[in-house]
Amino acid sequence: MNPSAALPDMTAAVCAVCILLVPLAAAGLALINTGLGRSRNAAHAMMSSLCVLAVAAAAYFICGFSWQGFPGRAAYAIEAGGKMWNWIGADPLFLRGVDFGGSSASSGASLAALLGMFSAGLAVLIPLGSGAERWRLGSSCASAAILAGWTYPLFAHWVWGGGWLAELGVNFGLGRGFADVGGAGSIHAVGGLAALAIAWILRPRRGKFAQEGMPTAIPGHNAVFVLFGCLLALIGFLCLNTAGAILYVGVGVGRVPLVAINTMLSASSATLASALITRTRFGKPDASLSANGWVGGLVASSAVCAFVIPAAAVLIGLVAGALVTISVEWLELHLHIDDPGGAISVHGLAGIWGLLALGFFDHLPGSSGSHQWLAQLAGVATLLGFVLPLTYALNWLLNRISPQRAGLDGERQGMDLHELGANAYPELVTHQEDFTPR
Amino acid sequence: MNPSAALPDMTAAVCAVCILLVPLAAAGLALINTGLGRSRNAAHAMMSSLCVLAVAAAAYFICGFSWQGFPGRAAYAIEAGGKMWNWIGADPLFLRGVDFGGSSASSGASLAALLGMFSAGLAVLIPLGSGAERWRLGSSCASAAILAGWTYPLFAHWVWGGGWLAELGVNFGLGRGFADVGGAGSIHAVGGLAALAIAWILRPRRGKFAQEGMPTAIPGHNAVFVLFGCLLALIGFLCLNTAGAILYVGVGVGRVPLVAINTMLSASSATLASALITRTRFGKPDASLSANGWVGGLVASSAVCAFVIPAAAVLIGLVAGALVTISVEWLELHLHIDDPGGAISVHGLAGIWGLLALGFFDHLPGSSGSHQWLAQLAGVATLLGFVLPLTYALNWLLNRISPQRAGLDGERQGMDLHELGANAYPELVTHQEDFTPR
Amino acid sequence: MNPSAALPDMTAAVCAVCILLVPLAAAGLALINTGLGRSRNAAHAMMSSLCVLAVAAAAYFICGFSWQGFPGRAAYAIEAGGKMWNWIGADPLFLRGVDFGGSSASSGASLAALLGMFSAGLAVLIPLGSGAERWRLGSSCASAAILAGWTYPLFAHWVWGGGWLAELGVNFGLGRGFADVGGAGSIHAVGGLAALAIAWILRPRRGKFAQEGMPTAIPGHNAVFVLFGCLLALIGFLCLNTAGAILYVGVGVGRVPLVAINTMLSASSATLASALITRTRFGKPDASLSANGWVGGLVASSAVCAFVIPAAAVLIGLVAGALVTISVEWLELHLHIDDPGGAISVHGLAGIWGLLALGFFDHLPGSSGSHQWLAQLAGVATLLGFVLPLTYALNWLLNRISPQRAGLDGERQGMDLHELGANAYPELVTHQEDFTPR
Repeated sequence: MNPSAALPDMTAAVCAVCILLVPLAAAGLALINTGLGRSRNAAHAMMSSLCVLAVAAAAYFICGFSWQGFPGRAAYAIEAGGKMWNWIGADPLFLRGVDFGGSSASSGASLAALLGMFSAGLAVLIPLGSGAERWRLGSSCASAAILAGWTYPLFAHWVWGGGWLAELGVNFGLGRGFADVGGAGSIHAVGGLAALAIAWILRPRRGKFAQEGMPTAIPGHNAVFVLFGCLLALIGFLCLNTAGAILYVGVGVGRVPLVAINTMLSASSATLASALITRTRFGKPDASLSANGWVGGLVASSAVCAFVIPAAAVLIGLVAGALVTISVEWLELHLHIDDPGGAISVHGLAGIWGLLALGFFDHLPGSSGSHQWLAQLAGVATLLGFVLPLTYALNWLLNRISPQRAGLDGERQGMDLHELGANAYPELVTHQEDFTPR
Repeated sequence: MNPSAALPDMTAAVCAVCILLVPLAAAGLALINTGLGRSRNAAHAMMSSLCVLAVAAAAYFICGFSWQGFPGRAAYAIEAGGKMWNWIGADPLFLRGVDFGGSSASSGASLAALLGMFSAGLAVLIPLGSGAERWRLGSSCASAAILAGWTYPLFAHWVWGGGWLAELGVNFGLGRGFADVGGAGSIHAVGGLAALAIAWILRPRRGKFAQEGMPTAIPGHNAVFVLFGCLLALIGFLCLNTAGAILYVGVGVGRVPLVAINTMLSASSATLASALITRTRFGKPDASLSANGWVGGLVASSAVCAFVIPAAAVLIGLVAGALVTISVEWLELHLHIDDPGGAISVHGLAGIWGLLALGFFDHLPGSSGSHQWLAQLAGVATLLGFVLPLTYALNWLLNRISPQRAGLDGERQGMDLHELGANAYPELVTHQEDFTPR
Repeated sequence: MNPSAALPDMTAAVCAVCILLVPLAAAGLALINTGLGRSRNAAHAMMSSLCVLAVAAAAYFICGFSWQGFPGRAAYAIEAGGKMWNWIGADPLFLRGVDFGGSSASSGASLAALLGMFSAGLAVLIPLGSGAERWRLGSSCASAAILAGWTYPLFAHWVWGGGWLAELGVNFGLGRGFADVGGAGSIHAVGGLAALAIAWILRPRRGKFAQEGMPTAIPGHNAVFVLFGCLLALIGFLCLNTAGAILYVGVGVGRVPLVAINTMLSASSATLASALITRTRFGKPDASLSANGWVGGLVASSAVCAFVIPAAAVLIGLVAGALVTISVEWLELHLHIDDPGGAISVHGLAGIWGLLALGFFDHLPGSSGSHQWLAQLAGVATLLGFVLPLTYALNWLLNRISPQRAGLDGERQGMDLHELGANAYPELVTHQEDFTPR
């Protein structure tokens, strides 16, 4: 069960079709972010989603894939401690090194280029959640270019491109090396940590925290978009996890039912955990937090779906849902972080939880169990100790060059009018003053 | 053309990918239900959809698949009249008996577990249509657990798991035995009859029937959601019907175009029938009823799509659309049943019509025509004579333990505020008083 | 790389699954059209979409496929200039000539029947964009029947059915003959030219042009629908382009990544071009025009996606986005054409641009480069010189028989109330008077 440059034809075909559907996850996440914001920022939220997807595709095309690479292709390595540390891909820019002719031998790399392009798109959507309602469109595009062109490919190379994290197994006998089936780390934790950096840099929305630091609830404008987005995200994740399982961890098509059942069960149990916890705490289940739980369950499943039994997926989902629900509140109350979409908890925390859980629940035959948890820990440590500072520094620099936060006017009149010159719903009569000072 | 435990690899691959997309049908149905209700219940409708999907997945994982099973696996049978009557599956609980390792030999059962999980999810969405705007979230989850964990698996075993209805052909020479390609019976009629039970138990919404019993129209709050949901449902049904045709009736990949053309034609002709009938009766075509017709056409096609020529699919769709349109009104006017989503007509009646139609239009080569209609009649009789009383009794019991209907306050202020503590669209100004007393 | 009646089994399977997802493009386009109109016409826009899809499926079933045909099947030809000019298919009506039994040998034709049915559905959605807010439902259905039953199949036969445009390569040495991978010509240019005819025949909406001919902006009612629709359309086009590449130009499954990367890059660069141009011109990026750019990029990619390198796709997308953005304004300002959905520019112009671009950028190995551009020019000349007059004449005739435009009342009160008797959002309070006289 290892990725290889040459996939069997049928396996490659299934992988290709599943990749075509990964943008459903993007559509779902965009809709969730939009619904969780206020109506005066709704067009801006969707427009930003479309634009960062476009920028991510362009950046990934220009240099992203070159640096992500694929196992067996050109890469740079450093020798240290008697081992080679493969640290970045070395493919030609502009996808010029990929053979798109369609021969079997080259199928792995061309599929990786496509999946990488869509994965980078998912990663850049995540910080939009935490920067919602105050992040300038131009800045979010610049930040997306950095994330899709550099940060994401770098970490993805380490995990999926034959880099040093993947080789921890071969080099140091840590299980199968750092494993991440569908991107809980490469896409979601990387995106979630970028979301954290953005929330820090942009600071809270006006009116979010009162003088005494108590957070005010600012409800989203459309719960139907949020909950419907969860259903689309489910399908996107089903296909993303399947494609990742085939391409990056080398399972066969026969494993697809397990991957999908685990994905569904993890999302389901996470939602139920969120609903029960919010019901216990607030007397009524909270729809937004339950939606966050659902996506958190999907994210956690991304790490483990090909390697665990369904009962483990239920357990992992339950913990993911609980973590997300508690963390969303905790970040607000105790760290005074304003994350309107819950992106830090849903993608960052649940992703990291999934990666760690893989270390404990990897029981299926074929696993090389011993010390797998150490490999997972190394990956998580890299995320927190290297990716987070890197993504913070780059976004801090960007903020220096040109402030990322919209001016006061933008927040007052809404980003739609301020940055796009038109409201999302120009005909609707709203009573916004109920919720926050304009 | 019989289901078998070991599918050819490529056929299994196509089936697997199609199953991943079945939740599009769930997304479509959830959106339709939501749009057909009023805005004060919109978040509740979507939240209920997400929760019952989660509960159904969990229940199906715990025991549902064990009892549904798959042809050739362990099952209990009773001897009566010199024949063995296979009546329930006997797989270990928690999916422990399914080999997810990915070998060809086990592909049938693992695919059936996945498709069954999503099918159970579709089934539990259906009663949400008839119970809309007054069904407590907790009760709908409990009801979903029973439906997905017991009623659905039981009937699905009889049809798809090698049970006695499927064996009517072998045992009594009734054609190929009771046939149901994509779930017109197992999913939709079962769900539609549960919807009928729920509508009876919950009784009509306040204000739906005036003193003299005349029904008041309570228009849905978002026709765009309803009609857009139809398009998503189409894609979900295309994939559901394809997956069912491969997995449960054993057709090859080469039949996919026929399955899909029949599905599309049936939905199309049903919509046109609904539009023409409503135009004739009311002077103008009715969008909601046309949407109901569309889904009714999809449901009817589920029974027959792999077995009939396209011209027959057109005819079956026309009748389905007409039946749904007339029945929605008839249930209101003459039986005083309040079914806001039209679930009883759309899923129950159209499903039964599709099953009966299969008895008459099954002309393709390979059919064992004679007496097929008797097998279909036996299945429909079982639905009406056994499944309906069973599902009514179980939901009646549930209602005894804890009343399923929300209190008067819930209806007055809307289920969103009452059960979730927040409106779906908190910023929008609405004039609800036009439509019904609060 | 030529289409053939017998596809390899696995290739046919991938093609079949991708075709099942083509309706996602229809769902996306319908949502875009709806969002670009005003709220008083929203239900009408979606209802028209559903109805024309249904009518198109029926018309294509009755006679459309017979006339489109497939290479190697019965067709009529005329001898002229010593060459045979294959001009129309000659399959039996009602799909009676297609072998749906599922043998490999017949897979090409049955897949073509299915893809053709969905393609015809896409084509008929396009004129709904230009006729929005004033086109009677009955007339749009009649017009759709003609488009799906005659105009589309005729041109599609010439391109994809073995007709004379496809044979320009064999007969006159013009490259590989007129090529159109996914329908930039057959679906989008044909639909876009029909949209032009409809816009001419219906004339502008009341209040669109002031006395002096200056256009008034009439903003759409829901930017979220518009931008979200773009994401759904992306997935639909990914699958449509893949299916067309396999079925109509004979590429193997290994080319799917190239097709998909080109599609994504073209849409991305087109959006960025639109956003930058509108920002330069108006000070702020325009969300609606950027959405139009996105779809224009998808349409242009449809022509070329299987034949060009990714860098070329970026360039083609940039030009497509620029063309759409400029053309939308130019049609309004200089030709006084009222096209609320931008259908003429997005589908007609971008489609034609894609076809011409194929003549210049077709560099991949296997291309028979020389004179390919002449074949493309011949196709575009046929579209402008034959298809446009034909579609105009037929719609003009239809308009003679029964006026296609709704009466003044319809525009005043909204098509929802006028033609369907109910609003899309009956509970919402709107302030429509801000935008246009009722």
